[in-house]
Amino acid sequence: MRTSIATVCLSGTLAEKLRAAADAGFDGVEIFEQDLTVSPHSPEQIRQRAADLGLTLDLFQPFRDFEGVEEEQFVRNLRRMEAKFALMNRLGIDTILLCSNVGTATINDDELFASQLRRAGDLAQRYQVRIAYEALAWGRFVNDFEHAQRIVDMADHPQVGTCLDTFHILSRGWSTDAVEQIPGEKIFFVQLADAPKLSMDILSWSRHHRVFPGEGDFDLVKVMTHLARTGYDGPISLEIFNDSFRKADVARTAVDGLRSLRWLEDQTWHALAEGERDVALELSPLPEVAEPAGVDFLEISTGRLGETIRVLHQLGFQLGGHHRSKSDFQVWTQGPVRIVIGDRGPTGAATTITGLGFATPDPASAQQRARLLQAGTIARTREDDEADLRGAYAPDGTEVFFGEVSPDGFPTWLDEFGVEKAERVSASLITGIDHINLAQPWQHFDESILFYTSLMALEARDRDEFPSPIGLISNQVMSSPNDAVRLLLSIAPEDGEQGDFLDAAYPEHIALTTTDIIAVARRARKRGLAFLPVPENYFEDLQARFDLDPEFLDLLRENNLLYDRDDTGGEFLHFYTRTLGTMFIEVVERRGGFTGWGETNAPVRLAAQYRTIRDAERGVPR
Amino acid sequence: MRTSIATVCLSGTLAEKLRAAADAGFDGVEIFEQDLTVSPHSPEQIRQRAADLGLTLDLFQPFRDFEGVEEEQFVRNLRRMEAKFALMNRLGIDTILLCSNVGTATINDDELFASQLRRAGDLAQRYQVRIAYEALAWGRFVNDFEHAQRIVDMADHPQVGTCLDTFHILSRGWSTDAVEQIPGEKIFFVQLADAPKLSMDILSWSRHHRVFPGEGDFDLVKVMTHLARTGYDGPISLEIFNDSFRKADVARTAVDGLRSLRWLEDQTWHALAEGERDVALELSPLPEVAEPAGVDFLEISTGRLGETIRVLHQLGFQLGGHHRSKSDFQVWTQGPVRIVIGDRGPTGAATTITGLGFATPDPASAQQRARLLQAGTIARTREDDEADLRGAYAPDGTEVFFGEVSPDGFPTWLDEFGVEKAERVSASLITGIDHINLAQPWQHFDESILFYTSLMALEARDRDEFPSPIGLISNQVMSSPNDAVRLLLSIAPEDGEQGDFLDAAYPEHIALTTTDIIAVARRARKRGLAFLPVPENYFEDLQARFDLDPEFLDLLRENNLLYDRDDTGGEFLHFYTRTLGTMFIEVVERRGGFTGWGETNAPVRLAAQYRTIRDAERGVPR
Repeated sequence: MRTSIATVCLSGTLAEKLRAAADAGFDGVEIFEQDLTVSPHSPEQIRQRAADLGLTLDLFQPFRDFEGVEEEQFVRNLRRMEAKFALMNRLGIDTILLCSNVGTATINDDELFASQLRRAGDLAQRYQVRIAYEALAWGRFVNDFEHAQRIVDMADHPQVGTCLDTFHILSRGWSTDAVEQIPGEKIFFVQLADAPKLSMDILSWSRHHRVFPGEGDFDLVKVMTHLARTGYDGPISLEIFNDSFRKADVARTAVDGLRSLRWLEDQTWHALAEGERDVALELSPLPEVAEPAGVDFLEISTGRLGETIRVLHQLGFQLGGHHRSKSDFQVWTQGPVRIVIGDRGPTGAATTITGLGFATPDPASAQQRARLLQAGTIARTREDDEADLRGAYAPDGTEVFFGEVSPDGFPTWLDEFGVEKAERVSASLITGIDHINLAQPWQHFDESILFYTSLMALEARDRDEFPSPIGLISNQVMSSPNDAVRLLLSIAPEDGEQGDFLDAAYPEHIALTTTDIIAVARRARKRGLAFLPVPENYFEDLQARFDLDPEFLDLLRENNLLYDRDDTGGEFLHFYTRTLGTMFIEVVERRGGFTGWGETNAPVRLAAQYRTIRDAERGVPR
Repeated sequence: MRTSIATVCLSGTLAEKLRAAADAGFDGVEIFEQDLTVSPHSPEQIRQRAADLGLTLDLFQPFRDFEGVEEEQFVRNLRRMEAKFALMNRLGIDTILLCSNVGTATINDDELFASQLRRAGDLAQRYQVRIAYEALAWGRFVNDFEHAQRIVDMADHPQVGTCLDTFHILSRGWSTDAVEQIPGEKIFFVQLADAPKLSMDILSWSRHHRVFPGEGDFDLVKVMTHLARTGYDGPISLEIFNDSFRKADVARTAVDGLRSLRWLEDQTWHALAEGERDVALELSPLPEVAEPAGVDFLEISTGRLGETIRVLHQLGFQLGGHHRSKSDFQVWTQGPVRIVIGDRGPTGAATTITGLGFATPDPASAQQRARLLQAGTIARTREDDEADLRGAYAPDGTEVFFGEVSPDGFPTWLDEFGVEKAERVSASLITGIDHINLAQPWQHFDESILFYTSLMALEARDRDEFPSPIGLISNQVMSSPNDAVRLLLSIAPEDGEQGDFLDAAYPEHIALTTTDIIAVARRARKRGLAFLPVPENYFEDLQARFDLDPEFLDLLRENNLLYDRDDTGGEFLHFYTRTLGTMFIEVVERRGGFTGWGETNAPVRLAAQYRTIRDAERGVPR
């Protein structure tokens, strides 16, 4: 599949955009006119630069407010268009995007639109260029791709065809089935954009909130299957107006974009029936990735080992052993949960979550897929007799490993830590990992979602938000279809005026599962765990909301437990440890099919974490 | 007027919120329930703390999903309500906000709503508290304040009254005239919120985009006049859900909020007829501020004096003189434009705009008003025979001076610089200040708008946005009603991944007026001015857009001029200097009533400024 990207998606100068598109592996670009207008490079220089980088220049865009006007105005519009055709000849671009008229159209007459397009086509013929006519969702008279296509049909000119843009089609809720009725050779260009479902005016939605395919709510795979069946053989191009992309690092935006197209190509290939896959678009599937069977291990890095292992032990973990060739790594285990600690020595470095090992059915295939999806892959030095540890860097820098599936709960790499299989069979109070919560920089939130979707076969579920003392937090739940892996990706507020505070005020966390949280909490208390304190006002509010049995409430109070209940009587009991560096640990017990994440209690936690930091600043003892 | 603020408007802990509200000068606060729930302080401690700070606790809020339910559910709701009444007794709060049911109402029956409210009233009587019933804009069955009032009337209970919230009324576009029909004693509480006009779902709009009065598009003055006529004598309280406020510094948000209420009180007083002003709300007007007659002077600070005065001279300015007691200040003049330079010596400190002197008809009154509006006022040390320089700090730290009105173009303070009146009469090419563009941190953008509105009698006009290579820029035009002063406030994108770059990539600027830009540009060229370069592609695009006369186009090219034209033939010619520190100077000529600001050319400028910085980073010579 030929891939392309509009320069308007990317930050920086036109020269920087071309470089980033080429480096990411795009086949071509659309030149957004303003990027050229503000550039000090001549059209000939841009043409040469693109050729040197191996990029085709696929489209010149946009040309606006052309058809549906009185003759006098139309002649001026033709003159303006001719100047752009001459410019396209200098750039070596053969197709221009013509948007349906938004601002100046005064005559609503399909015959007139068609005849004006036909005259534009005659002019285009002289310059040997083509016109791709697109219905903008907010076009004055033409705002539906089928209507645009009828006008193109009426114009009946070899230089006049259609441009399909998924945002303009799907934002209006049009059915895309009719795409299949358009002859492939009349589709001159295809622009893709995804978007989250937002209830706002379409123009603002379009200008600010488009995202790359797979990062929003549109069904682009379905559009692509229709398109494949038309015989279209041109580029599939990204045209994304997004406030974050405009300011993010251009190289990583380009990589994110190419990843989205490779993922979409793969999804489309799978969505087509076996006999349909040999299409002009030349689709290639990616190596398969199966959903993870669970979490193989978690990796923490710390310069404060003593504090970290104290908390793990208080929660019931045992030291499994030290790695035989990398002695600064040790593993702590409890039941099926394995936490590898990278000891950074007495550096005082904050305790942080550095890696996730997913139990991956076919690690070699997963890594090959990651490479094709342009992820930075991890190559860990290892001895010959050690397990091959493959993985990729997530957008926030977390190392995601394609770990082992160990049906007997004993992955082979535990050998390298000297753990005996016999040691692993004892019953434990902690029975698994409920979820892992990672904080994401706002610039990379959408990229992170696509990363876990496309590389790890996770699915984006609910998104919610809740208040903290220093801003709202957005939370995206992601999980594997089998629910064996659950990730919560959070965006913390951008740094307001609270300075360095943020890492510690919005810590990441690991939530462990138990079937007996009272026992876990009691053991932890006995071992001296510093629980995150829960205010008395919270318990009084619980009582008012749920009319709890006073003895049960005392049990919660005594064990620093938080509580939630759903409409069907499902219950959620949980507690938090105090923050270690930029992370903490939560223990949860679910009763009766509770499906939430403790989101109603998150404000209590965030307020307590905030106070801890404030107190530490003021030298208040714990 | 009694002022109050909901704790949900403010960031931090409940203790921090109370302190900030008291420091800003509020009379009371509404306790947002969740702020109490997450607090480690008991209700009694909060009550005592508020009393110590001199704050009344005016409202406990919100109580949700109460009425319109089956009896069994209603009994549970009453029990939940009773727990909150008991809590209110401990807090010493006598009024609770009851929102119309959103989630659980199943029976649409006004009689039932009224009877359930009456039963709640009986319960309230036992606890000696009052219930203020509010129609949420998205209430299931009750979403209109008149409807809510009818239900209150039907309930006919002394403990049951109405809460009016301007967001819920104005976001639905309801007329507010009917407010006057409500008896003042049945209005138990009033919450104010302003909001920008946004086309999005009301819930998201309400939860994220409310702003303080005067910072949005709602006509709150009109609501206040209706309210004054009812005889309502309770607090006027702010209830603003705003993503920025949630993360901004709590003390300045509180000051911003109080300023908005003082401004609104003053506006309401003026909007009432003379005989109507003695109302139970006890409104006081502020000292009058007349719109500025123009710009008295601008102040620049620089650690690179040589570079700065070179540019001023290249643009035609002359050194007027040095201040007689503060020798590190000098003034440069041209026609009516006076630029004071604070010489910071060979520190290398960046050249920045530090002060604006508005020609203020009554400086003493303006300063008194600024004090009542909680602005930080400026006290400059001065000798006895020197002019009294009054002013206030704008939210971005700019010093705004209440300068002199000088009908003869010769303010008295020029004496202190040894400028002779005779020197000032010569004709000049620069004839004034067209506009001043200041960059605002995003956290203080709304605050800045209210600052200039309430202190300087400017008005918020158009808001637009345009792209730069590293993000979108929002621009708010503000001007005095007489158009003698025009400010452009810009929000630059938050720091993405472009680091320290931003100050220089989004410089502030001073735009000077001329009636002969060709002459100004030629003189500047002769004197060696470093113009901001304009790319050739831009001129070619101009040609395509406007079909300009080739000679005129050459004239633009030769003088580095940018150009725009409006529909009526009005024209705008302008050029930019290169950036000095964090600022630059623009010169503009308007022909035929052109009213824009060169916004269509801003992307060309921003791209050139960005390239200059990139080149400097890479050591490319100019």
